[in-house]
Amino acid sequence: MPDDPAAHHFHCTDRERAAFEAGIKLGAVFHQFVGLPVSRGNAVAVERAITECVRIQPFVTGAEVRIERAGLPDKAHEYDYRSLTGDMLRVGLTVTYGAAKAEAGILYDEDLAYPLMFLRVND
Amino acid sequence: MPDDPAAHHFHCTDRERAAFEAGIKLGAVFHQFVGLPVSRGNAVAVERAITECVRIQPFVTGAEVRIERAGLPDKAHEYDYRSLTGDMLRVGLTVTYGAAKAEAGILYDEDLAYPLMFLRVND
Amino acid sequence: MPDDPAAHHFHCTDRERAAFEAGIKLGAVFHQFVGLPVSRGNAVAVERAITECVRIQPFVTGAEVRIERAGLPDKAHEYDYRSLTGDMLRVGLTVTYGAAKAEAGILYDEDLAYPLMFLRVND
Amino acid sequence: MPDDPAAHHFHCTDRERAAFEAGIKLGAVFHQFVGLPVSRGNAVAVERAITECVRIQPFVTGAEVRIERAGLPDKAHEYDYRSLTGDMLRVGLTVTYGAAKAEAGILYDEDLAYPLMFLRVND
Repeated sequence: MPDDPAAHHFHCTDRERAAFEAGIKLGAVFHQFVGLPVSRGNAVAVERAITECVRIQPFVTGAEVRIERAGLPDKAHEYDYRSLTGDMLRVGLTVTYGAAKAEAGILYDEDLAYPLMFLRVND
Repeated sequence: MPDDPAAHHFHCTDRERAAFEAGIKLGAVFHQFVGLPVSRGNAVAVERAITECVRIQPFVTGAEVRIERAGLPDKAHEYDYRSLTGDMLRVGLTVTYGAAKAEAGILYDEDLAYPLMFLRVND
Repeated sequence: MPDDPAAHHFHCTDRERAAFEAGIKLGAVFHQFVGLPVSRGNAVAVERAITECVRIQPFVTGAEVRIERAGLPDKAHEYDYRSLTGDMLRVGLTVTYGAAKAEAGILYDEDLAYPLMFLRVND
Repeated sequence: MPDDPAAHHFHCTDRERAAFEAGIKLGAVFHQFVGLPVSRGNAVAVERAITECVRIQPFVTGAEVRIERAGLPDKAHEYDYRSLTGDMLRVGLTVTYGAAKAEAGILYDEDLAYPLMFLRVND
């Protein structure tokens, strides 16, 4: 177990804690950033801000964020941009808690028509 | 394991999955609702909406949300309300995945000055 | 002009102020609530919370919010709900500032494929 | 009046329209970004993303965003960051609609203890 001043609030294994922390970060990305105005012109700045917001959260040891450009306009007129949706988000992150590692992210599952949050836990 | 059409995206135990799903819901509550205008007058409606938004998410089997009223004004003048902060949120929820159960929530940890997301996993 | 302790921060007519305040509330509704989990089961609670969040903001004298149900599922399985989008939001609100009245809202403009915020100012 | 395919949805002067559009953008900034994880390490990336999200919205001709660093930690331990609040936001933007110009922003009004959105309209 790492040095964690909040450890007394948890009753779970290190692997379960890593999975929990990964879930928090994905829920945060989705619900903080969905809705923001996005176009081809600002997508890089948005990707970078999301990535850096994930990285400063507890026990994150890696994060990558990409906004799917297909369907994003080039801002040809005043109303020509989109609101970020979950379908556009491609996220991968790693949470490390002690010896446990959770690799998680967001992908778009075509069958479910759902931006799915997935998980793999290792130690 | 429950009937889950997305199961092939996961490499983890049922307990780890339950922990992950609980984390997603807490990240969602925090980052979706922090910032909304709140006063003593609308707190009940806000609590109810948050609760019902948690309950419809995958594998949630229970949810309770309370907004701490201490510090909330009574809307005595036009600018007399607050923006919801994490410190005001008291959340408890249960995720059930197969035989595994994650009980998680948000409490305010005075020592860390931090709205902490906690977890207990059972099966 | 109404009794307004912040009046010294404004250099505009009462009608312009009413228009400005109406815009703030619509931007707030869109960007606070887009992304939240919504289904036929929780739509009423969400509509009510949004309405009450608009009503407590400065100079609002009326608000109505409806979530378009077409396309909303009945939660037949775990992943069977949607994230609220701007396209689903039908909002109407009135801001009154002194003798000026701004009637504004969100409608979906099919030609622009855009959730448009509209305005009518009277006095 | 500029070339505006949505003009038929508006019954107001160009100055009122500029004020309305400025209000929308400020409501959007506040309610989209309040709550995001912020520290001294990611503040520049966050400022840049907010700025670029404002700039792509209709009729914006200028935008500046600064996050007040006082009170922001240096990420000395895992829980050592903050959630962005309205009090930390310093925003200035210009909306131009035809000959009308709205200069608006967010400042923190100490007397009201309120992150105030202000406005000046010119033509």
